[in-house]
Amino acid sequence: MINAIGREIPAHVEGYGKVTPFAGAFATEPDMPRRAPAVKWARPGAAKLATGLEEVFRAIPVRDGMTLSFHHHFRNGDGVVNLVLATAAKLGLKDLKVAASSIFPVHAPLVEHFKAGVVTALDTNYMSGPVAEAVSRGALAKPVILRTHGGRARAIECGQLKIDVAFIAAPSADEYGNVNGIAGPTACGSLGYAYPDAEYADKVVAVTDNLAAYPLTPVSIPQTRVDYVVKVDKIGDPKGIVSGTTRITKDPVQLKIADTAAKVVQASGLLKNGFSFQTGAGGASLAVAHFVRQMMVAGGITGSFALGGITGYLVAMLEEGLFEKIIDVQGFDLEAVRSLAANPNHVEVGAGFYANPFNSGCVVNMLDCVILGATEIDTAFNVNVVTGSDGMIMGGSGGHSDAAAGAKLTVVVANLLRGRLPIIMDKVLTATTPGETVDVLVTERGVAVNPRRGDLKEKLAAAGLPLKEIGELKRLAEAIAGVPQPVKLGDRTVALVEYRDGTVIDAVRQVVR
Amino acid sequence: MINAIGREIPAHVEGYGKVTPFAGAFATEPDMPRRAPAVKWARPGAAKLATGLEEVFRAIPVRDGMTLSFHHHFRNGDGVVNLVLATAAKLGLKDLKVAASSIFPVHAPLVEHFKAGVVTALDTNYMSGPVAEAVSRGALAKPVILRTHGGRARAIECGQLKIDVAFIAAPSADEYGNVNGIAGPTACGSLGYAYPDAEYADKVVAVTDNLAAYPLTPVSIPQTRVDYVVKVDKIGDPKGIVSGTTRITKDPVQLKIADTAAKVVQASGLLKNGFSFQTGAGGASLAVAHFVRQMMVAGGITGSFALGGITGYLVAMLEEGLFEKIIDVQGFDLEAVRSLAANPNHVEVGAGFYANPFNSGCVVNMLDCVILGATEIDTAFNVNVVTGSDGMIMGGSGGHSDAAAGAKLTVVVANLLRGRLPIIMDKVLTATTPGETVDVLVTERGVAVNPRRGDLKEKLAAAGLPLKEIGELKRLAEAIAGVPQPVKLGDRTVALVEYRDGTVIDAVRQVVR
Repeated sequence: MINAIGREIPAHVEGYGKVTPFAGAFATEPDMPRRAPAVKWARPGAAKLATGLEEVFRAIPVRDGMTLSFHHHFRNGDGVVNLVLATAAKLGLKDLKVAASSIFPVHAPLVEHFKAGVVTALDTNYMSGPVAEAVSRGALAKPVILRTHGGRARAIECGQLKIDVAFIAAPSADEYGNVNGIAGPTACGSLGYAYPDAEYADKVVAVTDNLAAYPLTPVSIPQTRVDYVVKVDKIGDPKGIVSGTTRITKDPVQLKIADTAAKVVQASGLLKNGFSFQTGAGGASLAVAHFVRQMMVAGGITGSFALGGITGYLVAMLEEGLFEKIIDVQGFDLEAVRSLAANPNHVEVGAGFYANPFNSGCVVNMLDCVILGATEIDTAFNVNVVTGSDGMIMGGSGGHSDAAAGAKLTVVVANLLRGRLPIIMDKVLTATTPGETVDVLVTERGVAVNPRRGDLKEKLAAAGLPLKEIGELKRLAEAIAGVPQPVKLGDRTVALVEYRDGTVIDAVRQVVR
Repeated sequence: MINAIGREIPAHVEGYGKVTPFAGAFATEPDMPRRAPAVKWARPGAAKLATGLEEVFRAIPVRDGMTLSFHHHFRNGDGVVNLVLATAAKLGLKDLKVAASSIFPVHAPLVEHFKAGVVTALDTNYMSGPVAEAVSRGALAKPVILRTHGGRARAIECGQLKIDVAFIAAPSADEYGNVNGIAGPTACGSLGYAYPDAEYADKVVAVTDNLAAYPLTPVSIPQTRVDYVVKVDKIGDPKGIVSGTTRITKDPVQLKIADTAAKVVQASGLLKNGFSFQTGAGGASLAVAHFVRQMMVAGGITGSFALGGITGYLVAMLEEGLFEKIIDVQGFDLEAVRSLAANPNHVEVGAGFYANPFNSGCVVNMLDCVILGATEIDTAFNVNVVTGSDGMIMGGSGGHSDAAAGAKLTVVVANLLRGRLPIIMDKVLTATTPGETVDVLVTERGVAVNPRRGDLKEKLAAAGLPLKEIGELKRLAEAIAGVPQPVKLGDRTVALVEYRDGTVIDAVRQVVR
C-alpha cells in the first residue's frame, strides 16, 4: 500500500502484524492503554546478586523466542550485548529477538548469531557496521523494525514492543539493583534509553562491573524494577562512547554551511533569552553550535536548555551560563559524563521524557531549534538517514524524526554533494523524517525553506540569507555531478521504518548486488 | 469471616467488593498485571496552563462519582484538598471519592462535603481530627479504606485504587508540568507520596503557587504525566508540615524507654557500619535517635541510610557523617526541606520505592531497624495505631506496617499506660500491624521480645536488658490501672483496615456513644 508521503509499504509483515501507514506527523492518535506487565514482588531478605549470566538465564528462565533488550549508551564501546548473546548461544537458545536501542560495529558477533538461528529478529533505532550490512543483504527472514528514540519508548509503553528481559549495562549498581551511569571505571553518563526497558520489561537484569555500596544514589534505574544484579569483569569501554568526531569541523565548506545555519537560527527570531537547542555530535553540527554560541555571547542571550545527545561543547556552554540547563538522554563524550555527575543543572532524563509522542508531553515539544544532518533529502523535504546511496543500511532515525517533529525550527545542514552524488533528489531512497517536520535545508550553495513555512521564508529573506527553491539547489548539484542512477534493489523488505507514532513511513529493500 | 490473626471482618463491602482476609505478612502474592491507564498524547505547542481550577474541572471533565487524589506533604498546612473540593461543590458535583494519602484537622471542611453528598467515599492511610471523628460516627455510608503508605502505592499500581484525577500540590511547577517540592515560598520537600498518583491517574493536575521557568529541575513529578498546571494564590502553609513535636522529649519516663530501646538496637548486633534506621517524628522516637546517635559516635559507626519521614535530627546525623544517605519520602520539618534541596546524599523517593510490597523490592526491605509507636499492643504483638481507646479513629498505619514488615528489627516503644489505661491487652481494638512483624516492645517497666524471635531474646538477655514476658507487662499495667472496660461499638463497619498486601487485617466499627 501507499502511505501519506507516497511510499510503497507492505500491508502486513510476519512477526509484526498489520502495518499502519504513516498518515502525517500528528495525524495518528493513540487509542490503547499502557502496557501492563505482571506485578512483581520481593520478600525482605531476598537477594538479587547472581554469580553470573548463566545463573540469571536459568533463574528467569530465558526461553526460545523471547525478546531481550539493551541500551546503547556505550555505543561502539558496548560489551554487554555480545556477552549476553554469547551466553544465550552457549545455552543453546534459539529464535531470540534483540531489541537494542542502537547497534554499532562492535556488535559484529550478532551476525554469527543470525546465522546460527540464536537471534532471528531485531528491533533497533539505528544500526551501522557489519550487522547493518548483513541485514541489508537479507540475513534475517523477518524485517528489522527501525524506530525512533521516542518511538521506541512509545512502543514499549504502549505494548507494541514487549520485552521479556531487559539487560542494563550498569556502570554502577548496588546489590539491590539501583543503577546509575555516573560512577565507576566505565561511567557512561546518562542511561536515559534504558528507562522504558526497566519500567516495562517482565524481568530486568543489571549487568555491572562496579558493585557499589547500598543505597547507590543518584538512582537512574531503581531497585523497584531490577530483579537480578550480575557482576562481570567489564561492561564496555567508555572510549567507544566517543563515536565519530566530537571536534568542530575544519572543512571550509562545512564551516560555511554551519555559519549560514546559525544565521538562519538568528533570523528566525528564536535566538533570544529562553532559547532551547539541540544539535548532534558531528563536526558540522558542532560548528553550528560554535556559531550560535558566538551569537549568544555577543547578544548577551541566556538560553533555557540544551537537549539531546550531549557533547562537551554544550557542557562548556552550560558552564559559561549560555544555557540554564542541559537535558541529557545520552552522553556523546566523557565531558558530558563528568558534567552529569557534577552539575545539578545537567539533568538525566529517560527516552520517554525526551521524545515519546504518546505521553502528556515530551521535551522535544518544548524545543526551539534543532540542527540535523541528512544522507538524502527530497524536494518534499523528506529526509533519509537510514540508507546510503547504494541502499545499504548505515544509520537510522535515532532522535532525528523526534526532534524534527517537536522543534519550532528544524534545520537540516548538508553538503550539496555527498561523495560524488547530489543529496537532493525527487524522492529519497528511504524516508525517515517526513518533510512536513523539516523547515529549512542549508547547503553551501544556498538555503531552501519548506513552502509550508512562508512566515519563516520572509524572515530569512529579510535577513539577507541566500534563499533558493529546493528544486533549484537540486539542479545546481545535478549540474555538477549529473543525475544519479537509481539504485537497483531486491523486492524483499529487510526493514520497516516506523515513524515515532508507530505508523510505517517506509520500507527498506534488500541489497542484491 | 475471621482472618489469620482472628479478626472478624466482613466478606464483602459495597463499593470495595470481595474482601480478601489477611493471611500472614508475606502469605499473599500478587497475581495481577499493573494498572494500564489510557495512553496520552500532547502535540508540540499545546499549552497546559489553565486559568483556574474550574477551567480544569470543565476541561477534564470531572464527573459525578470520580476519584480525586491528593498527597499529604503539607500535612496540617495543606490548602489544596479544601480548594479542589470547594470547586467540586461549587460546580455541583456529587458522589466523589477522595483518595488522600492522609487527612488532617485542616481538612475539616470535608465533613460538610460528606453531608452535602459531594464526597461519599474516602480512601486514606491516616486520618485525625474532625474528618476522622465524623467517619467514626458514621458520616459515610461506605466504609473508608485505610491503607498503609506502601499499600496505597500498591493499590494504585495494581489497579485496586483507580484514580481519575490526581491533584498535585506543587511548591514549584513550570508551565509544562514539571514539579518539585524544594523551591518556592511553600517548599515542603519530598513529594514521594504523589508519585504513584501521577504515574497511574488518568489525568494529573499540578496546583502551584510558584510558577518556575521551564525546564524546572530537579523533577519530582514529570511533565510527561501532568496534563494541567494551575496557578493559585497559596497551596498551603509550610508551618503546618511540622505536626506535633519535633523536639526530643523531656519526659523522664519516655527518656528511659528511649534509652532502653537504643540498648535493644545495640544488643541486636545491627548497630555497626552499614546500619540503616527509621524512626518517627514524635518526641520519644527522636529520643531513641538521640541515644542511637551517641552510640554511633562512641563506636565510630557509619550507617548506610536513614529512611522515612525525615526530621532535622536525621539531617544532622547525615551532616555529621553518621549516615551516608537519607532516603526521603516525606519531610517532617523545614530542616528536612532545606537538606533535600541542598545535599545530593539526601534523596527523594516515591511511595512505591519506599514501601510497596509488590515491586522488585522496596527500601523498607533493606532496613535494619525501625522504631515505632503504638496506641495499643496485644499479647500476640499485634499493634493498633488506628483507633483510640474510645474506638474513635485518630490515626492510621501510614508507614507503620510497611516498616515493621521490612525491617530486620522492629521495636515498638510505648508507656505502659496511655492516659490512665494499660496499652497492652489480650486483643487490640483494631489490628493495624500484625504481631509477626513486631520483634520487641520496650516499656518503662521492661522489654518484651516476640516469642518468634528466640535468637533476639538471647542477645538481649546477654546484654542484661530487663526482659519480661508481654503477659507479665500486661499484668503490671493492670495492677496499676485495673483491667479496662471493653468499649461498646456499633455493628456498622465504618472503615476497613487494609494490610499492605491488599488483604483486610481488621474492620473499624461505628462509635455510637
